Amino acid sequence: MTEARRVYLDHAATTPPAPEVVEAMLPYLGEVWHNPSSIYVEAQRAAQAIDEARATVAAWIGAQPEEIIFTSGGSESDNLALRGVLAASRARGRHMITNAAEHHAVLDTAEQLEREGAEVTLVDVGPDGRIDAASVADAVRDDTVLVSIMHANNEVGALNDIAAISRAVHERNPRTVVHTDAVQSAAHMSVNVDRLGVDLLTLTAHKFYGPRGAGALYQRSGTPLAAQILGGGQESSKRAGTENTPAIVGLARAVQVAQERREADLSHERALQQRLIQELPKRVPMLGITGPTDLEHRLPGNVSAVVGYVEGESILLALDLAGVAASSGSACTTGGVEASHALVALGGAGALARGSGGVAPSSGSAGTRGAGEPSHVLVAMGVPDELARGSLRFTLGRDNTDADVDYLLEVLPGIVERMRALSPIPVSEAPAEWEPWLANGA
Amino acid sequence: MTEARRVYLDHAATTPPAPEVVEAMLPYLGEVWHNPSSIYVEAQRAAQAIDEARATVAAWIGAQPEEIIFTSGGSESDNLALRGVLAASRARGRHMITNAAEHHAVLDTAEQLEREGAEVTLVDVGPDGRIDAASVADAVRDDTVLVSIMHANNEVGALNDIAAISRAVHERNPRTVVHTDAVQSAAHMSVNVDRLGVDLLTLTAHKFYGPRGAGALYQRSGTPLAAQILGGGQESSKRAGTENTPAIVGLARAVQVAQERREADLSHERALQQRLIQELPKRVPMLGITGPTDLEHRLPGNVSAVVGYVEGESILLALDLAGVAASSGSACTTGGVEASHALVALGGAGALARGSGGVAPSSGSAGTRGAGEPSHVLVAMGVPDELARGSLRFTLGRDNTDADVDYLLEVLPGIVERMRALSPIPVSEAPAEWEPWLANGA
Repeated sequence: MTEARRVYLDHAATTPPAPEVVEAMLPYLGEVWHNPSSIYVEAQRAAQAIDEARATVAAWIGAQPEEIIFTSGGSESDNLALRGVLAASRARGRHMITNAAEHHAVLDTAEQLEREGAEVTLVDVGPDGRIDAASVADAVRDDTVLVSIMHANNEVGALNDIAAISRAVHERNPRTVVHTDAVQSAAHMSVNVDRLGVDLLTLTAHKFYGPRGAGALYQRSGTPLAAQILGGGQESSKRAGTENTPAIVGLARAVQVAQERREADLSHERALQQRLIQELPKRVPMLGITGPTDLEHRLPGNVSAVVGYVEGESILLALDLAGVAASSGSACTTGGVEASHALVALGGAGALARGSGGVAPSSGSAGTRGAGEPSHVLVAMGVPDELARGSLRFTLGRDNTDADVDYLLEVLPGIVERMRALSPIPVSEAPAEWEPWLANGA
Repeated sequence: MTEARRVYLDHAATTPPAPEVVEAMLPYLGEVWHNPSSIYVEAQRAAQAIDEARATVAAWIGAQPEEIIFTSGGSESDNLALRGVLAASRARGRHMITNAAEHHAVLDTAEQLEREGAEVTLVDVGPDGRIDAASVADAVRDDTVLVSIMHANNEVGALNDIAAISRAVHERNPRTVVHTDAVQSAAHMSVNVDRLGVDLLTLTAHKFYGPRGAGALYQRSGTPLAAQILGGGQESSKRAGTENTPAIVGLARAVQVAQERREADLSHERALQQRLIQELPKRVPMLGITGPTDLEHRLPGNVSAVVGYVEGESILLALDLAGVAASSGSACTTGGVEASHALVALGGAGALARGSGGVAPSSGSAGTRGAGEPSHVLVAMGVPDELARGSLRFTLGRDNTDADVDYLLEVLPGIVERMRALSPIPVSEAPAEWEPWLANGA
């Protein structure tokens, strides 16, 4: 019996912790487990490890150590940024600016803040998923306390010119805080806070071969920010809770590995990405690349597409059976529950692997929203709903090979063809309104 | 050269991850690192591990799996409980009840909620640190949406009769939500949610030989609770963020180990605890045990005391040099910065071990509050400030031995004597107001 081939093309969802990262964490799960806030020598060793990690992360993004707040991950950092600035700026205003293509950690928090009395302006998202700096600046008012625009879109890979946005915002109102969610971009490119001109920046380790449970929020010195988890002096009283030493050490080690491998990783991922962006539309009829097609404006490693007359999730299930792990957008909003039920119905590998534990598949832990609903990012870009349902995302990483790309190009066309043949909806010519979105397609 | 003896007596601050826990986590740092919200088979294995962990934690406390919300730890759980109930209950009222001996994760959050318009009643804390059920019930009003009383006090080990408190509160107002922070008690005793009668209960793994970064909030089905970290469907949309699979698996494994070892751990820790409670006042002049002295009302393993005419932190530094790791109260509020500066000044083991990294000792990661200030718990109990400054806490664990207790009893009297000899304050008779607090003493 040979082992089935598995190809992982979902690095934007999460990445395997680098061996160096796991190795760096182990002493802090073993010998140096003490509470860093305690007084004795072992505890001070843990505190020192955290200090060193803080210095590493800070240097990476061009910040000072005291400007780094360690959190449990990207979602917490985004929530802290939005809630923290709005709460600390009540006297100045309650207006903030973001856009409808953000990660839900920003979007849902903004909506909640609106329910609590804040005023939220959503600037337009371009058809390629990018945000125009001038349109952000135009929305800035005297009482605008926060602008939050992601560095790179997690679904379609659109890279925003955060430096231009920060500059334009700060010209209009120097007191407006600029936050960027750099969760995706930091995995692939420099996120120097001075070059970007931001006041707050969100990071999470597990997107760049670091551990789960380790995020950070950069807070430029002097930026108003109210702590959201209270109760201890940790993180300079900006985030209470006993420090997760192994995760923090793992985050810093992942930063070091990323620095060492950055150029090699980048050229590798760019090459594979370019091949897929060029070849997919040639191989699959009625497939259009979403997001910027010029790599200069696109997150390295990201390949996203819409495919006419298919459901993205059906394709994903078939790809899984064929050995390819991919996504139709954000893992956080993919309907894991419905998806895995479908997988069980198909009698696929997933159903077998889940075994007979008697536990309902992923109840409670998988996303519960968005199954069957088109991606909010594609909707914000103007992609017609029908077409948006056929969305796919392949995100490449350090360990992917040419053979992985070959394999995807080999299996995907047949899967799409088969799915279309099974579809109750008759497949005809693409409607005219799909045309711009399939421009790279057949 | 022989290795210096080290005795760890600070299990309430944190505990070493059990070897079984680390072993259980490793596959999820290695092979099963995938995002549990994703659709493919590897991700579903991660989701299944989380489902199983959820079932384990739920069964442990007599809950249903869907009533468990995984968080990053105890502070986040406490914050979620308070903020979540107040936010979800706005239409019913804005009154909550707690007490001044709670962990700061509850106390600081309550204070912040008060600044935001909530009304907070603090019920009296008894001289032994316990909370009277009747006084809680007396404070309940029609608009009381939340009562938050800790199960066991982290500093003085006072065990509250949460079952009686819940009963009394719910008799007065069935809609009032009862939350208990069981972070300390779960490490040592059963915390069945039905026997306790609570609606919300806070847990964190690192207090019972589990990993850092893994907490939970039990939410009784139907209890109003608004999510505080938004942005994904994880944890049934009650806590966004990619699940920390290894930490969650480690939490569940720690639960299993605690269950297996509960009786052995308990009788062991009770025996060591009893010896210290009996012997310390005999060996150290003007030392009084704080908190309940009857073990029925005291958290297993906890030994706390006040010592006249000494600074608790000076004693801790000397104990550290003698090889004993202990605390003067909560690690979260101990002034790590000042303490370690003192250690450097002493040229102690800590200063050597920190080495020449050039990083300021524990800047930013250690607690920044409370250094030099007496414990808020002792103050709430009525201990005079002067005496409260001489507070010590020894918390015993699974791996402590009779020899550890012997060693503490051997070194502590000399350290206290030396510190008193060095003190600029002349040591005389204990003032009359100290008398009740030194009743167990010389």
